[in-house]
Amino acid sequence: VGGATLSGVAKGAGMIEPNMATMLSYLFTDAALPAPALQEMLRRAVTQSFNRISVDTDTSTSDTVVVLANGHAGPVHAAAFEQALTEAATYLAQEIARDGEGATKLIDLEVREAPSPEAALRIAKSIVNSPLVKTSIYGADPNWGRFVMAVGKVFEHPIPLDRLSIHFGGAAENLTISAASQNADLLRRISEYLKRDEVHIQVRLGSGLHAERVWGCDLTEGYVKENAYYTT
Amino acid sequence: VGGATLSGVAKGAGMIEPNMATMLSYLFTDAALPAPALQEMLRRAVTQSFNRISVDTDTSTSDTVVVLANGHAGPVHAAAFEQALTEAATYLAQEIARDGEGATKLIDLEVREAPSPEAALRIAKSIVNSPLVKTSIYGADPNWGRFVMAVGKVFEHPIPLDRLSIHFGGAAENLTISAASQNADLLRRISEYLKRDEVHIQVRLGSGLHAERVWGCDLTEGYVKENAYYTT
Repeated sequence: VGGATLSGVAKGAGMIEPNMATMLSYLFTDAALPAPALQEMLRRAVTQSFNRISVDTDTSTSDTVVVLANGHAGPVHAAAFEQALTEAATYLAQEIARDGEGATKLIDLEVREAPSPEAALRIAKSIVNSPLVKTSIYGADPNWGRFVMAVGKVFEHPIPLDRLSIHFGGAAENLTISAASQNADLLRRISEYLKRDEVHIQVRLGSGLHAERVWGCDLTEGYVKENAYYTT
Repeated sequence: VGGATLSGVAKGAGMIEPNMATMLSYLFTDAALPAPALQEMLRRAVTQSFNRISVDTDTSTSDTVVVLANGHAGPVHAAAFEQALTEAATYLAQEIARDGEGATKLIDLEVREAPSPEAALRIAKSIVNSPLVKTSIYGADPNWGRFVMAVGKVFEHPIPLDRLSIHFGGAAENLTISAASQNADLLRRISEYLKRDEVHIQVRLGSGLHAERVWGCDLTEGYVKENAYYTT
Protein backbone atom coordinates (compact mmCIF):
# COMPACT_ATOMS: atom_id res chain seq x y z
CA VAL A 1 0.00 0.00 0.00
CA GLY A 2 1.94 3.00 -1.19
CA GLY A 3 5.27 1.50 -0.16
CA ALA A 4 3.96 0.05 3.13
CA THR A 5 3.41 -3.63 3.81
CA LEU A 6 0.48 -5.27 5.59
CA SER A 7 0.72 -8.83 6.93
CA GLY A 8 -1.69 -10.90 9.00
CA VAL A 9 -2.20 -14.24 10.70
CA ALA A 10 -5.36 -15.72 12.23
CA LYS A 11 -6.40 -18.78 14.18
CA GLY A 12 -9.86 -20.21 14.78
CA ALA A 13 -11.70 -23.51 14.47
CA GLY A 14 -14.88 -23.75 16.55
CA MET A 15 -16.92 -21.59 18.88
CA ILE A 16 -16.87 -19.26 15.93
CA GLU A 17 -19.52 -16.73 15.24
CA PRO A 18 -17.40 -13.80 16.23
CA ASN A 19 -18.78 -10.70 17.72
CA MET A 20 -15.27 -9.78 18.72
CA ALA A 21 -15.26 -12.16 21.48
CA THR A 22 -11.29 -17.91 20.69
CA MET A 23 -10.53 -16.49 17.39
CA LEU A 24 -7.16 -14.75 17.31
CA SER A 25 -6.06 -12.54 14.47
CA TYR A 26 -2.98 -10.32 14.27
CA LEU A 27 -2.26 -7.88 11.50
CA PHE A 28 1.05 -6.13 11.09
CA THR A 29 2.08 -3.18 9.01
CA ASP A 30 4.95 -0.80 8.67
CA ALA A 31 2.64 2.03 7.61
CA ALA A 32 2.64 5.19 9.72
CA LEU A 33 -0.94 5.85 10.85
CA PRO A 34 -2.34 7.62 13.93
CA ALA A 35 -3.62 5.00 16.40
CA PRO A 36 -7.21 6.38 16.62
CA ALA A 37 -7.57 6.40 12.81
CA LEU A 38 -6.14 2.86 12.61
CA GLN A 39 -8.56 1.71 15.32
CA GLU A 40 -11.52 3.08 13.38
CA MET A 41 -10.30 1.47 10.13
CA LEU A 42 -9.92 -1.85 11.96
CA ARG A 43 -13.41 -1.59 13.42
CA ARG A 44 -14.93 -1.06 9.99
CA ALA A 45 -12.78 -3.81 8.43
CA VAL A 46 -13.77 -6.29 11.18
CA THR A 47 -17.47 -5.56 10.67
CA GLN A 48 -17.09 -6.51 7.00
CA SER A 49 -14.89 -9.56 7.60
CA PHE A 50 -14.49 -11.43 10.90
CA ASN A 51 -17.98 -10.47 12.08
CA ARG A 52 -19.39 -12.00 8.86
CA ILE A 53 -18.25 -15.60 9.47
CA SER A 54 -19.81 -18.45 11.38
CA VAL A 55 -18.54 -21.98 11.99
CA ASP A 56 -21.13 -23.07 14.53
CA THR A 57 -23.14 -20.05 15.78
CA ASP A 58 -21.30 -20.19 19.11
CA THR A 59 -19.57 -16.99 20.10
CA SER A 60 -16.33 -17.25 21.99
CA THR A 61 -15.54 -15.16 25.02
CA SER A 62 -12.12 -14.19 23.71
CA ASP A 63 -12.07 -13.34 20.00
CA THR A 64 -9.20 -10.98 19.32
CA VAL A 65 -8.19 -8.90 16.33
CA VAL A 66 -5.18 -6.67 16.71
CA VAL A 67 -3.37 -4.50 14.21
CA LEU A 68 0.14 -3.32 14.96
CA ALA A 69 1.79 -0.51 13.01
CA ASN A 70 5.43 0.46 13.58
CA GLY A 71 5.46 3.38 11.13
CA HIS A 72 8.77 2.43 9.41
CA ALA A 73 7.31 2.82 5.92
CA GLY A 74 6.02 6.31 6.61
CA PRO A 75 2.62 7.82 5.87
CA VAL A 76 0.15 6.06 3.55
CA HIS A 77 -3.06 7.00 1.77
CA ALA A 78 -5.73 6.25 4.38
CA ALA A 79 -8.46 5.01 2.01
CA ALA A 80 -6.06 2.74 0.12
CA PHE A 81 -4.71 1.37 3.40
CA GLU A 82 -8.21 0.74 4.74
CA GLN A 83 -9.12 -1.14 1.57
CA ALA A 84 -5.99 -3.31 1.93
CA LEU A 85 -6.82 -3.86 5.60
CA THR A 86 -10.39 -4.91 4.79
CA GLU A 87 -9.16 -7.28 2.04
CA ALA A 88 -6.59 -8.86 4.38
CA ALA A 89 -9.17 -9.25 7.16
CA THR A 90 -11.69 -10.76 4.71
CA TYR A 91 -9.09 -13.23 3.43
CA LEU A 92 -8.20 -14.32 6.99
CA ALA A 93 -11.89 -14.56 7.95
CA GLN A 94 -12.63 -16.82 4.95
CA GLU A 95 -9.66 -19.03 5.82
CA ILE A 96 -11.01 -19.44 9.37
CA ALA A 97 -14.41 -20.51 8.03
CA ARG A 98 -12.74 -22.92 5.52
CA ASP A 99 -10.74 -24.36 8.41
CA GLY A 100 -13.81 -24.76 10.70
CA GLU A 101 -13.93 -27.84 12.91
CA GLY A 102 -14.78 -30.86 10.74
CA ALA A 103 -15.46 -28.64 7.73
CA THR A 104 -14.92 -29.96 4.19
CA LYS A 105 -16.08 -26.83 2.36
CA LEU A 106 -16.05 -23.05 2.49
CA ILE A 107 -19.50 -21.58 1.90
CA ASP A 108 -19.48 -18.10 0.38
CA LEU A 109 -23.03 -16.76 0.61
CA GLU A 110 -24.46 -13.50 -0.60
CA VAL A 111 -28.02 -12.42 0.06
CA ARG A 112 -29.18 -9.80 -2.47
CA GLU A 113 -32.33 -7.83 -3.17
CA ALA A 114 -33.15 -7.50 0.55
CA PRO A 115 -35.35 -4.69 1.90
CA SER A 116 -32.62 -3.41 4.28
CA PRO A 117 -28.99 -4.14 5.19
CA GLU A 118 -30.21 -5.56 8.53
CA ALA A 119 -32.62 -7.95 6.76
CA ALA A 120 -29.87 -9.01 4.32
CA LEU A 121 -27.46 -9.80 7.17
CA ARG A 122 -30.01 -11.52 9.43
CA ILE A 123 -31.20 -13.73 6.55
CA ALA A 124 -27.64 -14.48 5.40
CA LYS A 125 -26.71 -15.53 8.94
CA SER A 126 -29.89 -17.62 9.21
CA ILE A 127 -28.97 -19.53 6.02
CA VAL A 128 -25.25 -19.98 6.75
CA ASN A 129 -26.05 -21.12 10.32
CA SER A 130 -28.88 -23.52 9.45
CA PRO A 131 -27.85 -27.10 10.35
CA LEU A 132 -30.11 -28.38 7.56
CA VAL A 133 -28.49 -26.11 4.94
CA LYS A 134 -24.99 -26.99 6.26
CA THR A 135 -25.61 -30.76 6.20
CA SER A 136 -27.19 -30.61 2.72
CA ILE A 137 -24.13 -28.78 1.36
CA TYR A 138 -21.91 -31.38 3.04
CA GLY A 139 -23.91 -34.12 1.29
CA ALA A 140 -24.03 -32.16 -2.04
CA ASP A 141 -27.81 -32.40 -1.80
CA PRO A 142 -29.47 -29.72 -4.01
CA ASN A 143 -32.12 -29.21 -1.33
CA TRP A 144 -33.01 -25.61 -2.11
CA GLY A 145 -36.15 -25.89 0.04
CA ARG A 146 -33.86 -25.70 3.06
CA PHE A 147 -32.64 -22.29 1.89
CA VAL A 148 -36.25 -21.17 1.58
CA MET A 149 -36.94 -22.47 5.11
CA ALA A 150 -33.93 -20.54 6.46
CA VAL A 151 -35.21 -17.35 4.82
CA GLY A 152 -38.71 -17.96 6.16
CA LYS A 153 -37.68 -18.54 9.76
CA VAL A 154 -36.42 -14.97 10.14
CA PHE A 155 -39.75 -13.77 11.50
CA GLU A 156 -38.44 -10.22 12.09
CA HIS A 157 -37.99 -9.74 8.33
CA PRO A 158 -40.83 -11.48 6.47
CA ILE A 159 -39.99 -11.96 2.78
CA PRO A 160 -42.57 -12.97 0.14
CA LEU A 161 -41.10 -16.18 -1.24
CA ASP A 162 -42.58 -16.09 -4.76
CA ARG A 163 -39.81 -13.85 -6.16
CA LEU A 164 -36.97 -15.73 -4.47
CA SER A 165 -34.29 -17.44 -6.58
CA ILE A 166 -31.04 -19.18 -5.67
CA HIS A 167 -27.89 -19.05 -7.76
CA PHE A 168 -25.10 -21.61 -7.39
CA GLY A 169 -21.64 -20.82 -8.74
CA GLY A 170 -20.97 -18.00 -11.16
CA ALA A 171 -21.89 -17.07 -14.71
CA ALA A 172 -19.97 -20.08 -16.04
CA GLU A 173 -22.12 -22.52 -14.09
CA ASN A 174 -25.44 -20.72 -14.76
CA LEU A 175 -27.27 -22.71 -12.09
CA THR A 176 -30.35 -20.73 -11.03
CA ILE A 177 -33.22 -22.40 -9.25
CA SER A 178 -36.64 -21.13 -8.24
CA ALA A 179 -40.11 -22.62 -7.86
CA ALA A 180 -40.62 -21.96 -11.60
CA SER A 181 -37.35 -23.44 -12.83
CA GLN A 182 -36.92 -26.66 -10.85
CA ASN A 183 -36.16 -29.79 -12.90
CA ALA A 184 -34.23 -33.01 -12.42
CA ASP A 185 -31.32 -32.10 -14.70
CA LEU A 186 -30.79 -28.76 -12.93
CA LEU A 187 -30.85 -30.44 -9.53
CA ARG A 188 -28.28 -32.98 -10.74
CA ARG A 189 -25.99 -30.19 -11.97
CA ILE A 190 -26.34 -28.27 -8.68
CA SER A 191 -25.41 -31.45 -6.80
CA GLU A 192 -22.30 -31.80 -8.98
CA TYR A 193 -21.39 -28.17 -8.23
CA LEU A 194 -21.84 -28.66 -4.49
CA LYS A 195 -19.12 -31.34 -4.49
CA ARG A 196 -16.46 -28.61 -4.82
CA ASP A 197 -14.49 -27.57 -1.75
CA GLU A 198 -15.59 -23.95 -2.11
CA VAL A 199 -19.15 -23.12 -3.04
CA HIS A 200 -20.53 -19.74 -4.01
CA ILE A 201 -24.23 -19.22 -3.43
CA GLN A 202 -26.33 -16.14 -4.03
CA VAL A 203 -29.86 -15.90 -2.71
CA ARG A 204 -31.92 -13.19 -4.46
CA LEU A 205 -34.95 -12.18 -2.45
CA GLY A 206 -36.62 -9.91 -5.03
CA SER A 207 -37.62 -7.57 -2.20
CA GLY A 208 -35.21 -4.65 -2.28
CA LEU A 209 -31.79 -3.32 -3.13
CA HIS A 210 -29.59 -4.34 -0.20
CA ALA A 211 -26.95 -7.06 -0.15
CA GLU A 212 -24.72 -8.69 2.48
CA ARG A 213 -22.06 -11.38 2.18
CA VAL A 214 -21.13 -13.94 4.84
CA TRP A 215 -18.89 -17.00 5.03
CA GLY A 216 -19.43 -20.33 6.73
CA CYS A 217 -18.71 -24.03 6.39
CA ASP A 218 -20.56 -27.34 6.17
CA LEU A 219 -21.62 -29.40 9.21
CA THR A 220 -20.09 -32.88 9.29
CA GLU A 221 -19.62 -35.89 11.55
CA GLY A 222 -16.12 -34.47 12.11
CA TYR A 223 -17.55 -31.44 13.94
CA VAL A 224 -19.52 -33.69 16.27
CA LYS A 225 -16.51 -35.96 16.92
CA GLU A 226 -14.15 -33.07 17.68
CA ASN A 227 -16.56 -31.54 20.15
CA ALA A 228 -18.08 -34.60 21.80
CA TYR A 229 -14.95 -36.65 22.42
CA TYR A 230 -12.05 -34.23 22.73
CA THR A 231 -11.63 -34.78 26.45
CA THR A 232 -11.30 -38.00 28.34
CA VAL B 1 -60.69 -34.35 33.28
CA GLY B 2 -64.03 -34.37 35.07
CA GLY B 3 -65.31 -37.36 33.14
CA ALA B 4 -63.86 -36.25 29.81
CA THR B 5 -60.89 -37.84 28.08
CA LEU B 6 -58.00 -36.11 26.32
CA SER B 7 -55.75 -38.01 23.90
CA GLY B 8 -52.93 -36.85 21.64
CA VAL B 9 -50.39 -37.96 19.07
CA ALA B 10 -47.44 -36.05 17.63
CA LYS B 11 -44.75 -36.52 14.97
CA GLY B 12 -41.49 -34.64 14.47
CA ALA B 13 -37.81 -35.37 13.97
CA GLY B 14 -35.82 -32.53 12.38
CA MET B 15 -36.39 -28.99 11.18
CA ILE B 16 -37.71 -28.56 14.68
CA GLU B 17 -37.72 -25.30 16.50
CA PRO B 18 -41.44 -24.79 16.17
CA ASN B 19 -43.02 -21.46 15.93
CA MET B 20 -46.14 -23.20 14.78
CA ALA B 21 -44.83 -23.86 11.42
CA THR B 22 -43.10 -30.35 9.77
CA MET B 23 -44.17 -31.09 13.26
CA LEU B 24 -47.68 -32.55 13.43
CA SER B 25 -49.62 -32.90 16.62
CA TYR B 26 -53.25 -33.89 17.07
CA LEU B 27 -55.11 -33.82 20.35
CA PHE B 28 -58.55 -35.35 20.81
CA THR B 29 -61.10 -34.96 23.55
CA ASP B 30 -64.71 -35.74 24.21
CA ALA B 31 -65.09 -32.68 26.42
CA ALA B 32 -67.71 -30.12 25.41
CA LEU B 33 -65.98 -26.75 25.06
CA PRO B 34 -66.80 -23.70 22.93
CA ALA B 35 -64.39 -23.55 19.97
CA PRO B 36 -63.08 -20.00 20.72
CA ALA B 37 -62.30 -20.93 24.34
CA LEU B 38 -60.62 -24.17 23.23
CA GLN B 39 -58.55 -22.23 20.65
CA GLU B 40 -57.31 -19.84 23.34
CA MET B 41 -56.48 -22.72 25.70
CA LEU B 42 -54.55 -24.41 22.89
CA ARG B 43 -52.63 -21.23 22.08
CA ARG B 44 -51.52 -20.87 25.71
CA ALA B 45 -50.69 -24.59 25.99
CA VAL B 46 -48.62 -24.49 22.77
CA THR B 47 -46.62 -21.49 24.01
CA GLN B 48 -45.64 -23.49 27.09
CA SER B 49 -44.95 -26.77 25.27
CA PHE B 50 -44.32 -27.15 21.53
CA ASN B 51 -42.87 -23.63 21.21
CA ARG B 52 -40.35 -24.53 23.96
CA ILE B 53 -38.57 -27.35 22.09
CA SER B 54 -35.71 -27.34 19.61
CA VAL B 55 -34.05 -30.20 17.76
CA ASP B 56 -31.89 -28.15 15.40
CA THR B 57 -32.96 -24.47 15.46
CA ASP B 58 -34.56 -24.87 12.03
CA THR B 59 -38.19 -23.90 11.87
CA SER B 60 -40.41 -25.86 9.53
CA THR B 61 -42.93 -24.23 7.25
CA SER B 62 -45.71 -26.56 8.28
CA ASP B 63 -45.83 -27.26 12.02
CA THR B 64 -49.37 -28.16 13.00
CA VAL B 65 -51.12 -28.58 16.32
CA VAL B 66 -54.83 -29.33 16.24
CA VAL B 67 -57.26 -30.13 19.02
CA LEU B 68 -60.57 -31.78 18.18
CA ALA B 69 -63.44 -31.90 20.67
CA ASN B 70 -66.65 -33.83 19.93
CA GLY B 71 -68.46 -32.86 23.14
CA HIS B 72 -69.69 -36.39 23.99
CA ALA B 73 -68.50 -36.18 27.59
CA GLY B 74 -70.33 -32.93 28.23
CA PRO B 75 -69.06 -29.72 29.86
CA VAL B 76 -65.82 -29.70 31.83
CA HIS B 77 -64.13 -27.33 34.27
CA ALA B 78 -62.18 -25.01 31.95
CA ALA B 79 -59.11 -24.48 34.18
CA ALA B 80 -58.77 -28.21 34.90
CA PHE B 81 -59.13 -29.00 31.20
CA GLU B 82 -56.54 -26.38 30.23
CA GLN B 83 -54.11 -27.83 32.75
CA ALA B 84 -54.63 -31.32 31.30
CA LEU B 85 -54.21 -29.91 27.78
CA THR B 86 -50.94 -28.16 28.73
CA GLU B 87 -49.62 -31.33 30.38
CA ALA B 88 -50.51 -33.45 27.33
CA ALA B 89 -48.91 -30.92 24.96
CA THR B 90 -45.78 -30.74 27.15
CA TYR B 91 -45.49 -34.54 27.20
CA LEU B 92 -45.81 -34.73 23.39
CA ALA B 93 -43.33 -31.87 22.93
CA GLN B 94 -40.75 -33.62 25.16
CA GLU B 95 -41.21 -36.87 23.23
CA ILE B 96 -40.53 -35.02 19.94
CA ALA B 97 -37.30 -33.58 21.36
CA ARG B 98 -36.28 -37.03 22.71
CA ASP B 99 -36.97 -38.50 19.26
CA GLY B 100 -34.96 -35.76 17.42
CA GLU B 101 -32.93 -36.83 14.39
CA GLY B 102 -29.85 -38.72 15.61
CA ALA B 103 -30.59 -37.81 19.23
CA THR B 104 -29.47 -40.10 22.06
CA LYS B 105 -30.72 -37.94 24.94
CA LEU B 106 -33.53 -35.64 26.00
CA ILE B 107 -32.24 -32.41 27.49
CA ASP B 108 -34.57 -30.79 30.01
CA LEU B 109 -33.23 -27.32 30.71
CA GLU B 110 -34.48 -24.68 33.09
CA VAL B 111 -33.00 -21.20 33.32
CA ARG B 112 -33.77 -19.55 36.67
CA GLU B 113 -33.04 -16.26 38.39
CA ALA B 114 -33.27 -14.31 35.13
CA PRO B 115 -34.06 -10.58 35.06
CA SER B 116 -37.15 -11.09 32.84
CA PRO B 117 -39.17 -13.90 31.25
CA GLU B 118 -37.79 -12.82 27.83
CA ALA B 119 -34.19 -13.04 29.08
CA ALA B 120 -34.90 -16.45 30.64
CA LEU B 121 -36.34 -17.81 27.38
CA ARG B 122 -33.70 -16.27 25.07
CA ILE B 123 -30.88 -17.63 27.26
CA ALA B 124 -32.54 -21.05 27.61
CA LYS B 125 -32.91 -21.27 23.81
CA SER B 126 -29.30 -20.12 23.35
CA ILE B 127 -28.05 -22.93 25.62
CA VAL B 128 -30.28 -25.70 24.26
CA ASN B 129 -29.44 -24.69 20.66
CA SER B 130 -25.68 -24.33 21.13
CA PRO B 131 -23.86 -26.96 19.02
CA LEU B 132 -21.01 -26.96 21.56
CA VAL B 133 -23.39 -27.60 24.48
CA LYS B 134 -25.25 -30.27 22.49
CA THR B 135 -22.07 -32.12 21.44
CA SER B 136 -20.63 -31.95 24.98
CA ILE B 137 -23.80 -33.51 26.39
CA TYR B 138 -23.61 -36.19 23.69
CA GLY B 139 -20.03 -36.93 24.75
CA ALA B 140 -20.89 -36.70 28.52
CA ASP B 141 -18.25 -33.99 28.74
CA PRO B 142 -18.78 -31.86 31.90
CA ASN B 143 -17.79 -28.76 29.92
CA TRP B 144 -19.71 -26.19 31.90
CA GLY B 145 -17.73 -23.37 30.25
CA ARG B 146 -19.84 -24.00 27.14
CA PHE B 147 -22.97 -23.20 29.15
CA VAL B 148 -21.35 -19.97 30.31
CA MET B 149 -20.46 -19.15 26.68
CA ALA B 150 -24.08 -19.75 25.59
CA VAL B 151 -25.32 -17.41 28.32
CA GLY B 152 -22.74 -14.80 27.38
CA LYS B 153 -23.52 -14.79 23.67
CA VAL B 154 -27.03 -13.42 24.26
CA PHE B 155 -25.88 -9.84 23.83
CA GLU B 156 -29.43 -8.48 24.19
CA HIS B 157 -29.54 -9.68 27.81
CA PRO B 158 -26.12 -9.23 29.42
CA ILE B 159 -25.78 -11.29 32.60
CA PRO B 160 -22.96 -10.83 35.14
CA LEU B 161 -21.37 -14.28 35.22
CA ASP B 162 -19.94 -14.23 38.75
CA ARG B 163 -23.21 -15.36 40.38
CA LEU B 164 -23.97 -18.05 37.80
CA SER B 165 -24.20 -21.70 38.84
CA ILE B 166 -25.23 -24.85 36.98
CA HIS B 167 -27.10 -27.76 38.55
CA PHE B 168 -27.13 -31.21 36.99
CA GLY B 169 -29.82 -33.68 38.01
CA GLY B 170 -32.00 -33.26 41.08
CA ALA B 171 -31.54 -33.12 44.83
CA ALA B 172 -30.42 -36.75 44.86
CA GLU B 173 -27.48 -36.05 42.56
CA ASN B 174 -26.50 -32.73 44.23
CA LEU B 175 -24.21 -31.75 41.36
CA THR B 176 -23.76 -27.97 41.43
CA ILE B 177 -20.89 -26.32 39.65
CA SER B 178 -19.68 -22.73 39.58
CA ALA B 179 -16.33 -20.99 39.24
CA ALA B 180 -15.94 -21.38 43.04
CA SER B 181 -16.87 -25.05 43.27
CA GLN B 182 -15.08 -26.70 40.34
CA ASN B 183 -12.99 -29.78 41.16
CA ALA B 184 -12.00 -32.99 39.41
CA ASP B 185 -14.27 -35.27 41.44
CA LEU B 186 -17.32 -33.09 40.76
CA LEU B 187 -16.54 -33.00 37.04
CA ARG B 188 -16.22 -36.80 37.02
CA ARG B 189 -19.62 -37.18 38.72
CA ILE B 190 -21.26 -34.74 36.29
CA SER B 191 -19.82 -36.74 33.39
CA GLU B 192 -21.32 -39.92 34.88
CA TYR B 193 -24.69 -38.17 35.19
CA LEU B 194 -24.57 -36.96 31.57
CA LYS B 195 -24.41 -40.58 30.35
CA ARG B 196 -28.13 -40.96 31.16
CA ASP B 197 -30.64 -40.82 28.31
CA GLU B 198 -32.51 -37.96 29.96
CA VAL B 199 -30.62 -35.13 31.59
CA HIS B 200 -32.04 -32.36 33.75
CA ILE B 201 -30.05 -29.17 33.92
CA GLN B 202 -30.81 -25.96 35.75
CA VAL B 203 -28.83 -22.81 35.09
CA ARG B 204 -29.20 -20.22 37.86
CA LEU B 205 -28.19 -16.76 36.73
CA GLY B 206 -28.38 -14.96 40.09
CA SER B 207 -29.84 -11.93 38.33
CA GLY B 208 -33.58 -11.98 38.97
CA LEU B 209 -36.70 -13.94 39.71
CA HIS B 210 -37.84 -15.26 36.32
CA ALA B 211 -37.60 -18.83 35.03
CA GLU B 212 -38.30 -20.62 31.75
CA ARG B 213 -38.04 -24.29 30.80
CA VAL B 214 -37.17 -25.68 27.36
CA TRP B 215 -36.46 -29.12 25.90
CA GLY B 216 -33.91 -30.19 23.33
CA CYS B 217 -31.61 -33.06 22.39
CA ASP B 218 -27.93 -33.77 21.82
CA LEU B 219 -26.15 -33.28 18.47
CA THR B 220 -24.63 -36.49 17.10
CA GLU B 221 -23.06 -37.94 13.96
CA GLY B 222 -26.51 -39.46 13.37
CA TYR B 223 -28.05 -36.01 12.81
CA VAL B 224 -25.41 -35.20 10.19
CA LYS B 225 -25.84 -38.57 8.43
CA GLU B 226 -29.64 -38.32 8.30
CA ASN B 227 -29.52 -34.85 6.80
CA ALA B 228 -26.50 -35.07 4.50
CA TYR B 229 -27.17 -38.42 2.84
CA TYR B 230 -30.93 -38.97 2.91
CA THR B 231 -31.38 -38.42 -0.84
CA THR B 232 -29.57 -40.09 -3.70
